[in-house]
Amino acid sequence: MAGNTYGTIFKLSTFGESHGVAIGGVIDGCPAGITLDLNEIQNELNRRKPGQSAIVTQRKEPDTVEFYSGIFEGVTTGTPIGFAIHNTNQKSHDYTHIKDSYRPSHADYVYDQKYGFRDYRGGGRSSARETASRVVAGAIAKQFVSSIKINAFVSQVGTLKLEKNYKDLDFSLIESNPVRCPDPSTAAKMEDYIKKIKKEGDTIGGIITCVIQNVPIGLGEPVFDKLHAELGKAMLSINAVKGFEYGSGFEGVTQKGSDHNDQYNADGTTKTNNSGGIQGGISNGMDIYFNVAFKPVATVIQPYETIDKEGNMIKTQGKGRHDPCVVPRAVPIVEAMAAIVLADFTLLNRTIKL
Amino acid sequence: MAGNTYGTIFKLSTFGESHGVAIGGVIDGCPAGITLDLNEIQNELNRRKPGQSAIVTQRKEPDTVEFYSGIFEGVTTGTPIGFAIHNTNQKSHDYTHIKDSYRPSHADYVYDQKYGFRDYRGGGRSSARETASRVVAGAIAKQFVSSIKINAFVSQVGTLKLEKNYKDLDFSLIESNPVRCPDPSTAAKMEDYIKKIKKEGDTIGGIITCVIQNVPIGLGEPVFDKLHAELGKAMLSINAVKGFEYGSGFEGVTQKGSDHNDQYNADGTTKTNNSGGIQGGISNGMDIYFNVAFKPVATVIQPYETIDKEGNMIKTQGKGRHDPCVVPRAVPIVEAMAAIVLADFTLLNRTIKL
Amino acid sequence: MAGNTYGTIFKLSTFGESHGVAIGGVIDGCPAGITLDLNEIQNELNRRKPGQSAIVTQRKEPDTVEFYSGIFEGVTTGTPIGFAIHNTNQKSHDYTHIKDSYRPSHADYVYDQKYGFRDYRGGGRSSARETASRVVAGAIAKQFVSSIKINAFVSQVGTLKLEKNYKDLDFSLIESNPVRCPDPSTAAKMEDYIKKIKKEGDTIGGIITCVIQNVPIGLGEPVFDKLHAELGKAMLSINAVKGFEYGSGFEGVTQKGSDHNDQYNADGTTKTNNSGGIQGGISNGMDIYFNVAFKPVATVIQPYETIDKEGNMIKTQGKGRHDPCVVPRAVPIVEAMAAIVLADFTLLNRTIKL
Amino acid sequence: MAGNTYGTIFKLSTFGESHGVAIGGVIDGCPAGITLDLNEIQNELNRRKPGQSAIVTQRKEPDTVEFYSGIFEGVTTGTPIGFAIHNTNQKSHDYTHIKDSYRPSHADYVYDQKYGFRDYRGGGRSSARETASRVVAGAIAKQFVSSIKINAFVSQVGTLKLEKNYKDLDFSLIESNPVRCPDPSTAAKMEDYIKKIKKEGDTIGGIITCVIQNVPIGLGEPVFDKLHAELGKAMLSINAVKGFEYGSGFEGVTQKGSDHNDQYNADGTTKTNNSGGIQGGISNGMDIYFNVAFKPVATVIQPYETIDKEGNMIKTQGKGRHDPCVVPRAVPIVEAMAAIVLADFTLLNRTIKL
Repeated sequence: MAGNTYGTIFKLSTFGESHGVAIGGVIDGCPAGITLDLNEIQNELNRRKPGQSAIVTQRKEPDTVEFYSGIFEGVTTGTPIGFAIHNTNQKSHDYTHIKDSYRPSHADYVYDQKYGFRDYRGGGRSSARETASRVVAGAIAKQFVSSIKINAFVSQVGTLKLEKNYKDLDFSLIESNPVRCPDPSTAAKMEDYIKKIKKEGDTIGGIITCVIQNVPIGLGEPVFDKLHAELGKAMLSINAVKGFEYGSGFEGVTQKGSDHNDQYNADGTTKTNNSGGIQGGISNGMDIYFNVAFKPVATVIQPYETIDKEGNMIKTQGKGRHDPCVVPRAVPIVEAMAAIVLADFTLLNRTIKL
Repeated sequence: MAGNTYGTIFKLSTFGESHGVAIGGVIDGCPAGITLDLNEIQNELNRRKPGQSAIVTQRKEPDTVEFYSGIFEGVTTGTPIGFAIHNTNQKSHDYTHIKDSYRPSHADYVYDQKYGFRDYRGGGRSSARETASRVVAGAIAKQFVSSIKINAFVSQVGTLKLEKNYKDLDFSLIESNPVRCPDPSTAAKMEDYIKKIKKEGDTIGGIITCVIQNVPIGLGEPVFDKLHAELGKAMLSINAVKGFEYGSGFEGVTQKGSDHNDQYNADGTTKTNNSGGIQGGISNGMDIYFNVAFKPVATVIQPYETIDKEGNMIKTQGKGRHDPCVVPRAVPIVEAMAAIVLADFTLLNRTIKL
Repeated sequence: MAGNTYGTIFKLSTFGESHGVAIGGVIDGCPAGITLDLNEIQNELNRRKPGQSAIVTQRKEPDTVEFYSGIFEGVTTGTPIGFAIHNTNQKSHDYTHIKDSYRPSHADYVYDQKYGFRDYRGGGRSSARETASRVVAGAIAKQFVSSIKINAFVSQVGTLKLEKNYKDLDFSLIESNPVRCPDPSTAAKMEDYIKKIKKEGDTIGGIITCVIQNVPIGLGEPVFDKLHAELGKAMLSINAVKGFEYGSGFEGVTQKGSDHNDQYNADGTTKTNNSGGIQGGISNGMDIYFNVAFKPVATVIQPYETIDKEGNMIKTQGKGRHDPCVVPRAVPIVEAMAAIVLADFTLLNRTIKL
Repeated sequence: MAGNTYGTIFKLSTFGESHGVAIGGVIDGCPAGITLDLNEIQNELNRRKPGQSAIVTQRKEPDTVEFYSGIFEGVTTGTPIGFAIHNTNQKSHDYTHIKDSYRPSHADYVYDQKYGFRDYRGGGRSSARETASRVVAGAIAKQFVSSIKINAFVSQVGTLKLEKNYKDLDFSLIESNPVRCPDPSTAAKMEDYIKKIKKEGDTIGGIITCVIQNVPIGLGEPVFDKLHAELGKAMLSINAVKGFEYGSGFEGVTQKGSDHNDQYNADGTTKTNNSGGIQGGISNGMDIYFNVAFKPVATVIQPYETIDKEGNMIKTQGKGRHDPCVVPRAVPIVEAMAAIVLADFTLLNRTIKL
């Protein structure tokens, strides 16, 4: 392990630096016999792509995925799916300002300390560009577990909160605005706020909520690989994520057991769902829902002081195109990682009973 | 995988049901040459043990660990450490009330659905009793990574919050009260509140904060096995946990990047620590700190309605000895899982540079 | 990884030294719902046990397995099966003769070099005593894949070969003699020869042949985890094994393709079976058969010269009870490892197709 | 797992079908700071390439490897190394003769049975073409463990044996002839024989011997991941391999312990080396040597009878360009897999002692 493989059966291994030749990966363990909609995969990539709206980075990357193997006449063969997305924009930058200095709250410093040196161009491996590979794998996972419905959306930007319960939202509106918030009036406020932040050369954090519906009972592998523990790890592995909670989450700590417990209906469903669809680490068939907290992007277009490799304090200036708020583009990444986790547990669950 | 192994190099595999013959595990990959303080291991178990104070369950279990292998003349040999804790109290109960019915917000129902049937005695494998095995492994891991200081404590019970920053706390006071809150006046309030909840036959949630100090730079394996992602998974795998956040966490989403960024000092340390000691998934040498949210225990000593195996609604009554609030006893479990994660990443980090 | 776990889904983790408190393990991933015959498990252990006949070591170990978890009312629960075999004979020996010196062709020297020191009593972890744990897991695996028939037997001792094809043998005779060779007249010669070797204080090597029948088509996970590659690894991991060949094996290299190819019958079976039941790493439904070569046991009851820890040449003398030939007792170990491999691939195969 | 990843720390995941767009892989866990000689990697690929001499298949594939990531300014960065080899020859064939029928002793039939259908073009994933990815990873592994010397060579073709001990051979002659046998007169005989076999439209098996010198003491992870067990698995995972033996191997079974034991010199080396450089699964610093048996290639240019998908017996004819004997081209593959195993154990060994 050097940390670039995810999953036990449905297993994704990724590679690639922000400004290397290409990023990509190998998906091993995808079952045979799935007719893949390749347009749908590209569509997911487009949701993550830079330059898609006025509130995201204006960098241009076509993000076209090429498949190398594992698909024959449009159907998965059960053999590994190799794929790559060539970087097209990687030679045009001037990186001298970050080559020998460490940007605050980026991974520059720790990569140098851990590995001895680093590919400094655009953040190298620590760039969120690698998540495009996750989106490819997630789009395939979604098509495998197609009966499960996964919808993520932006529920908070800075202090602007979407106050509605997810049951009162129309998920078909998620893609109707660049923020990916399914409540149009909240979305408009968020969009304005992000534009304002952008003008300041600053950035802001946010929360993505993910709702997973129509989940079969039985997914999750206690005691360590509980369904919510894997979902949590998968989400926390996404760039800029600082927190994860599911079901009643942090709010739930203030409740009494007698209020928090989800009472059963005769059919095994529950009257409330503080459990967030997971009990004892195993899906119980109710909706799974969770929140993922994203910090503000570290790249700000402002002057700042930092250190160089020799430990000298230097004055420098953030520059270039950047995302003022990461959550709109992170929505498909959250969905992708959720789909990968669900695909893996679906396959593991087949091995449980005689 | 059926989910009962944790770690890549420092690897813990556990077994055991709440009321079976014994619980225990195998620790593989613990380096050779560590002189173990066995009393210290037992001491950690005692911190988790039932019956230790008036605010925890009054069940009696001596929780004495026996080591079977991997330690020779008090020193680890590099071979697997097998251990067991015999259950002594397992034959005295009457479980007929849970044999054929499903307790709300417990794992009874999903275990039956997933595995076809279950060891219903005391919750079987889904009981938090299995965490005693984690505490044993964690106590060994702590002795391996002994230069790292791991301190967890209770920072919230219900709505009662410890409002101080961890830097203003004296960790030596954690064990001075049964709540394991290092602020005596807050601890007293929490203790009273838990006693009140207990009298009502009810339960309440809480938050544990964990602070890890003196961490070497470089722990963590991006892009999937980031340090905070593994810490998150490890914590979420503990019974009753509903959320995890590190550094600025959920609060951080409301900050601007210009405020949130941690500016460097000339020596590579940072002036602030919103990053929580982790950047890009790798420790940066600053303090790591995180919060873990625990829901209220599902067992309440009150009448309730639920379903039996045939799907009939039945009326029943919670009974027996239970924990009114899980966080005091969960403090050593949080520390144990943190130690296991740190031990594993310490070993993985040895493989990185030429 | 420190090498003490085997399998991906049906996963065995073992612990234990020859003269520690106990040996044992954890079996994770055994499916729920298997009614276990515990006598059958003990019976397999008895086949491996020392002291069972005049041609094996006369040491006394009852080798009684205790199960700690994962079995409820005689049926597997899908949770990990913890077990231990307590060592009863471990305090009676005098090990001073091997404490500070290295026995030739044993692992004493390399353990000291690799781990810094070792539990020298009876060979510690490097003793074949650990294979008792494998036999327990294998006996459970056999009951899971009960439709598959696994028969191993001794086919060579020194230069004494069983010249018959396995199809002309009556496997019910394997247990009819202490050598575990199903051809009574060859068995008698082998037995005499082993007795003669024993009298000389010497040891001799041998070959075990294993035949696996009624295997479903489709087991094996190319390209690395081919069925024969895992069988090979499993066999080579057994103490004293020096070689593995399946199907036509080493003999097959002298054949032409036109002779070696297995022509199909209309039903998908083949007219010959040089493939040994495996093509492209996947079982094809024909009989699997393979040979496993065991070197002569390194402990000889003769004077020899060797080195001590300080690198001095010393004269010493092999002593104690030992096996003059390991193959009779290794037969159940070969079967056990084969069963574990087949159980694991059976479970993995469930994840392949949509 | 679906079997396409090898290794624990130095971890190779491969993809690709014989006639898909490309083959390739991801190498995760290669340490940072290795200055790679890319020409040397391509040179290893050229040793495996079709069309290199008169005794191998005349197919043309340039087999040019492209690196996508993980190497910066010629040095490994510690991040995953993604690579691909585009197939250039993949559209020119007519595969109708194998689309609906099963070639004897190929994997066609079992792939259809296991996965439901297959990419039939050129054998798809079951083609030995995938081993080119192993050669790339092996060439990088070699450069990581550069102090270890790995030399494989052809030691038998059909019944033609190289009768010399490896110590009497000059490894610099291995590449001096197309057979890759370092004894020129034996090589000449083998070459003539292979040409004769080729003229007959037939094929023949062979043996590759591999010698690994200058191995540090301590590689290997008992009890399951013994050094020779992993080497065995790695070799058995190569297409057409039917057997593996190390040290005294199958011959050793006829020896007595008193003859077979390797007596120590005062410096810890041994006077003989029947152990093949490995004791108890751990390298002891002596030369490692092993033999790998390859069956005759299944594709013969002769008429044969077989079955089609519907189970009808059909008459057909082997055609096209093929290898009459696989061992000359398999020499670099054996070396590559050995290098990968050694690289992985080198990294694991760093985690053993405090």
